[in-house]
Amino acid sequence: MIAEKMKGYVANSSIIRAMFEEGKNLAAKIGAENVYDFSLGNPSVEPPKHVKESIIEILNEENSMEVHGYMSNAGFESVRKTIADSLNKKFGTYFNENNILMTVGAAGGLNVILKTLLNPGEEVLTFAPYFGEYNNYVANFDGKLLAVTPNTVDFQPNIEEFETKITAKTKAVIINTPNNPTGVVYSEETIKKIAAVLEKKQNEYNTSIYLIADEPYRELAYDGVEVPYLTKYYNNTIVGYSYSKSLSLPGERIGYLVIPNEVDDYDDVFQAACVANRILGFVNAPSLIQKVVAKCIDAEVDIDVYNRNRELLYNSLIKYGYSCVKPEGAFYLFVKSLEEDDKAFAQAAKKYNLLIVPGSAFGCPGYVRIAYCVDYAMIERSLPAFEKLANDYNK
Amino acid sequence: MIAEKMKGYVANSSIIRAMFEEGKNLAAKIGAENVYDFSLGNPSVEPPKHVKESIIEILNEENSMEVHGYMSNAGFESVRKTIADSLNKKFGTYFNENNILMTVGAAGGLNVILKTLLNPGEEVLTFAPYFGEYNNYVANFDGKLLAVTPNTVDFQPNIEEFETKITAKTKAVIINTPNNPTGVVYSEETIKKIAAVLEKKQNEYNTSIYLIADEPYRELAYDGVEVPYLTKYYNNTIVGYSYSKSLSLPGERIGYLVIPNEVDDYDDVFQAACVANRILGFVNAPSLIQKVVAKCIDAEVDIDVYNRNRELLYNSLIKYGYSCVKPEGAFYLFVKSLEEDDKAFAQAAKKYNLLIVPGSAFGCPGYVRIAYCVDYAMIERSLPAFEKLANDYNK
Repeated sequence: MIAEKMKGYVANSSIIRAMFEEGKNLAAKIGAENVYDFSLGNPSVEPPKHVKESIIEILNEENSMEVHGYMSNAGFESVRKTIADSLNKKFGTYFNENNILMTVGAAGGLNVILKTLLNPGEEVLTFAPYFGEYNNYVANFDGKLLAVTPNTVDFQPNIEEFETKITAKTKAVIINTPNNPTGVVYSEETIKKIAAVLEKKQNEYNTSIYLIADEPYRELAYDGVEVPYLTKYYNNTIVGYSYSKSLSLPGERIGYLVIPNEVDDYDDVFQAACVANRILGFVNAPSLIQKVVAKCIDAEVDIDVYNRNRELLYNSLIKYGYSCVKPEGAFYLFVKSLEEDDKAFAQAAKKYNLLIVPGSAFGCPGYVRIAYCVDYAMIERSLPAFEKLANDYNK
Repeated sequence: MIAEKMKGYVANSSIIRAMFEEGKNLAAKIGAENVYDFSLGNPSVEPPKHVKESIIEILNEENSMEVHGYMSNAGFESVRKTIADSLNKKFGTYFNENNILMTVGAAGGLNVILKTLLNPGEEVLTFAPYFGEYNNYVANFDGKLLAVTPNTVDFQPNIEEFETKITAKTKAVIINTPNNPTGVVYSEETIKKIAAVLEKKQNEYNTSIYLIADEPYRELAYDGVEVPYLTKYYNNTIVGYSYSKSLSLPGERIGYLVIPNEVDDYDDVFQAACVANRILGFVNAPSLIQKVVAKCIDAEVDIDVYNRNRELLYNSLIKYGYSCVKPEGAFYLFVKSLEEDDKAFAQAAKKYNLLIVPGSAFGCPGYVRIAYCVDYAMIERSLPAFEKLANDYNK
């Protein structure tokens, strides 16, 4: 009796659940410490201590009716102002509270902005490999997600193909940098090229094309790499942010959208986004946690932990003969499959109790994603397994 | 550039915002203490002290990675079990954790279950007067909301008309008791009649018709009135609950769906609802607050505060010549407009600084909603204004 559209989603989700169940069964059989689960993009670093301190301060100092109460659908004005000020300080932007809309995580924010913008049949572009949930978010509003094929040399977007894929129906482009699943940070040069193509195509079709920057991994960048702030390169940019990774609060569902004054029809877009937040059933981002992220505006998780993991795993895999673009951000390695069929390869890895995700799930077959947001000790224990797996293919 | 569908929503929401702005301007002009704002259904009673204590206990005793981390899209298993056990104790039901899906408030829950069930063009019935957001929630999935006309004698649903409105396309019926805006609790007799009609029509059309009980006001019931638990009367019942009112946590966005084993295609429905929770962008209900509501499972706000408000306002209005069905639940009076046009009446009330909502907003013209979730002292101060307003019509 469920909706027709849901049937496909459920079937797909059963596969993931089957993988998860398989992992659990394996752990029961051989012990959890002998299963090397690299399948989940789940933060492995504790939230900063200031999160707990902030919660207690708020509970002790503020009125409980306000802390847990309704506010404007956009969120607490003071929280939005704190975030705008912080972005301005970091990136030299000129935002104020009316450019910030607090959301139920980045997933909530993406749904809000797609509901705001998309008419049925309109197109949204993204660059493969990409986070598979974008398919669902765009389908929620009867839009059409189209992916530019991956540039597997360095996983910077393929700009030539991008340009050919834009049509009069293109309403938005979603980009995700640092990227899930590659960990690659799109360079300033890439961003400038994307912006130039979009400007040209907007003029050509006399349309507005919104660039949606999905940025849950912004703060997870290594080796001092710069992650360009996209609103500075293209006026029609909307940023979706999440504190899931930067403060290790994925369960709390807290993030925000930045809708700059410079976007076309700013007034309509911001107001419609607030309404969309309400009618999609989010109503507002969770209230206490809104106040917490404002108090923790300068806090960050200890990314050195991820960096150590990255170095150990990357260097080891290269030594064993795997090939991989060394990622500068996020917490993933995107490794070339040792056989053409990435699903078969991920299946073969299970023989050594290695759980990794086929690249097909991200629109990029022939690769696998290895999430290194795990214990360092587990990586150490897993290395012989990766080596044996490689040896099986080098015989 | 916003989506066509959004334009109507934004226009509509501008009217509400205009009302809100008008109230703010009035407050600035004559002082907030002289504005009698009865327009918002916003809890006015503090959360129980146990909420704060629970948060601090959780932060001190549990691992911060779990407290703020991802869990299954359905929510923490232990939280779901605590809720199932509590419902079983209260209502003699037989739920377990696999019947409970934690949601981002009742609004989130309703969207999840409608996404799960509705195909485009399918019909959802409700009884006027009803919460206007149902229109938006059903439209989100291209369903069609149809309202049974109000029975203004006692605001129990009109069962005869209900029966005639059910078709082969009817996929769900939303009921809300205690009701917003009337405060009326649907009697056990009413519930039995609704169940009988649904059974009959399911057989007649060979369909499944899901009864969705939207229950944010369940605990706000006065004079010892019984609010029937609907799963006991009709197998295809799904309950949507919220802690917004029972614990005064509306900003936290926390609630749950109950999907009993007895509903048709239980396995598919529960699994699809978990997937819908994910792909709509909720992902999961906020994690810390999930744990809080489990710890506060037996806590309740002090509803005597609302009851005192109810008695004072109801008795006073009746004395001044207003007519109103005395509500047994929620925190609203639904009062007959003193002129045919409820919008004109609400406008006339502003002359005395009274802010009330026209019944047309709830599909029931000729009435106004007066929300008494306000300070008792404000009600006392407002009484001369209500009296003068009545006198204007009795000249």
